[in-house]
Amino acid sequence: MTEQQRQHLRAAPRTVISVDAMGGDRGPSAVVAGLARSAGKNPDIRFILHGNRPELERLVARRKVLEGRVDIRHAEDVVTMDAKPSHVMRHGQKTSMWSAIDCVRQGEAPVCVSCGNTGALMLLSIVRLRKLPGVNRPAIACLWPSRNPHGFNVMLDVGADVRADEHDLLQYALMGTSYARNGLGLDRPRVGLLNVGTEENKGRAELKAAHDLIQNCADRANFDFVGFVEGGDIPSDKIDVIVTDGFTGNVALKAGEGTARLIGDFMREAFNATPLSRIAALLAYTSLRRLKKRIDPRRVNGGVFLGLNGTVVKSHGSSDATGVSAAVKLAFELAQSGFTERLAMRVATAACGEQEATQAAAGSTR
Amino acid sequence: MTEQQRQHLRAAPRTVISVDAMGGDRGPSAVVAGLARSAGKNPDIRFILHGNRPELERLVARRKVLEGRVDIRHAEDVVTMDAKPSHVMRHGQKTSMWSAIDCVRQGEAPVCVSCGNTGALMLLSIVRLRKLPGVNRPAIACLWPSRNPHGFNVMLDVGADVRADEHDLLQYALMGTSYARNGLGLDRPRVGLLNVGTEENKGRAELKAAHDLIQNCADRANFDFVGFVEGGDIPSDKIDVIVTDGFTGNVALKAGEGTARLIGDFMREAFNATPLSRIAALLAYTSLRRLKKRIDPRRVNGGVFLGLNGTVVKSHGSSDATGVSAAVKLAFELAQSGFTERLAMRVATAACGEQEATQAAAGSTR
Repeated sequence: MTEQQRQHLRAAPRTVISVDAMGGDRGPSAVVAGLARSAGKNPDIRFILHGNRPELERLVARRKVLEGRVDIRHAEDVVTMDAKPSHVMRHGQKTSMWSAIDCVRQGEAPVCVSCGNTGALMLLSIVRLRKLPGVNRPAIACLWPSRNPHGFNVMLDVGADVRADEHDLLQYALMGTSYARNGLGLDRPRVGLLNVGTEENKGRAELKAAHDLIQNCADRANFDFVGFVEGGDIPSDKIDVIVTDGFTGNVALKAGEGTARLIGDFMREAFNATPLSRIAALLAYTSLRRLKKRIDPRRVNGGVFLGLNGTVVKSHGSSDATGVSAAVKLAFELAQSGFTERLAMRVATAACGEQEATQAAAGSTR
Repeated sequence: MTEQQRQHLRAAPRTVISVDAMGGDRGPSAVVAGLARSAGKNPDIRFILHGNRPELERLVARRKVLEGRVDIRHAEDVVTMDAKPSHVMRHGQKTSMWSAIDCVRQGEAPVCVSCGNTGALMLLSIVRLRKLPGVNRPAIACLWPSRNPHGFNVMLDVGADVRADEHDLLQYALMGTSYARNGLGLDRPRVGLLNVGTEENKGRAELKAAHDLIQNCADRANFDFVGFVEGGDIPSDKIDVIVTDGFTGNVALKAGEGTARLIGDFMREAFNATPLSRIAALLAYTSLRRLKKRIDPRRVNGGVFLGLNGTVVKSHGSSDATGVSAAVKLAFELAQSGFTERLAMRVATAACGEQEATQAAAGSTR
């Protein structure tokens, strides 16, 4: 591609997504298949694709729908799934992941998608994109299938950091509501703080402090705070955003996924148990497929890193075309809504808000 | 019942279980129905039942299978589900819960079952039964449906305390393996420590310390330590016992239960969606019932309080006859195996063991 072509692509009124083609378990062919699927559904999307140029050119050439919509950037190295994040940070300049993130840093794309090593992606994103002013700990937000009409709840942090104090939890509430507005289209998200009981005197000290900080901030930041919620409420329709520290959130997310997988396996066994049940499975095929789609982890694919100068969507390492395409869809929606700028504003406003709230709280106890 | 009859009952070579009849959401009729079910299946069981005597006498008289197998102790008051534990501790002497626990304290029964308020039950149990020598924080252990041949894994703590340091986590490992031996019949349980990744350098500082303490203790205490596990491994067949703090364990348990309920509801909707799917549900009836039984939370009913002078089984507040009967079955098995005494020995041995281990660790860093 000539420099002229490249400039033309950049100038086109399309949303550009920077994609790390090399990181996932299934290699670049699954990634390119996912991009083709997204491109087929959405004419307003184009890609900057990072990885091994000859391989990517061959894969892209096979997909007619990608013609003229993919700009390939060569990267010699790949971040492996077991690479140490600190090693990648020091020596990863030639990896496709680094290149994909730097594309956002340079302003060529508003959002980056990768199926690669989560720890390395998080660390590189923080180092290269830097934290938004006022953000202490960036967070990873995930979507959880729920009883809500829009089908998902947002939970954060699910693993960016194993700690969070009350100020971090307040920022998570603000970042989470901003994400729910721009990613799920909710005007006034309802926020719950994860705890082991719903009574106000329960749980750890930082949770009680966070409870008051978030409550004081809710009106000004235009969300509803429903107070403490329990693990069983994560998929409920009484909240849209679940706030927790990255240790608890990660365990809860994986415990939920593990339970869903276990039930799925048991269900398959149950339907294979007798000839009658196999016929039943056939008859219920459409209904079961709809059920599967509703709880398919690939559809909620795409943890989002929040709190950086730019948005990074982490797709499951084992993502296939469906998973990659879901992550790209999410990235597109966030890019379209100008999410990064909105989030930055939200956090900046809150930084002042929190000072006021702290002063007010101090006043009230005097 | 005369004192003579009572003494006769006590002398009979049967396992006695002390049951709080009043605490649950469904009242004493569900509890008595559960006892009748257990009594029908197990001729070696009898009960001391605590609560409103006239009401209980009427309920018991209706169940022929309970004839001569229930000793009723009158208690005027009931611990309500929303009662503050500290209030119950100070003013709850006349409640059925207090009476049921004191029955274990007096040595009349080796184990107590209650569907009542968890917080109050835990606090009363600690205050009345007292902690075993060497135990710092008692724990609640739950059973989780798993891929293991015996069908369940043990997880603890799931909510006795929101904190746990490395020494507590080591004790949980010892208490959990003792429970797995006596409750699940496993000779050499495999223990995993819950974390956000399986690499040894991951997670919070107390987890790294606990990792080493548990590893050093494994051989002497006759269990296998598989190291760190993640939330998705909780139902897996690579471990039998999952060790974690009460905050994380409680959230994970409820997140898993919530996910199972969500999928159950979605499944019902799917099978009601079309006439064809309704026929399918009919055809698959037996298989679906087996599936339901496998993941039915009532069957894994019965959190067990570990680390006290006596065993207390907490049944779900909403337990029906099936739930109560499952809790009674667990209580019976633990009583039969002399669980309390075995656990006490286990912890006492470990207390010395830990000193050695700490010295060894200190030596190795010197």
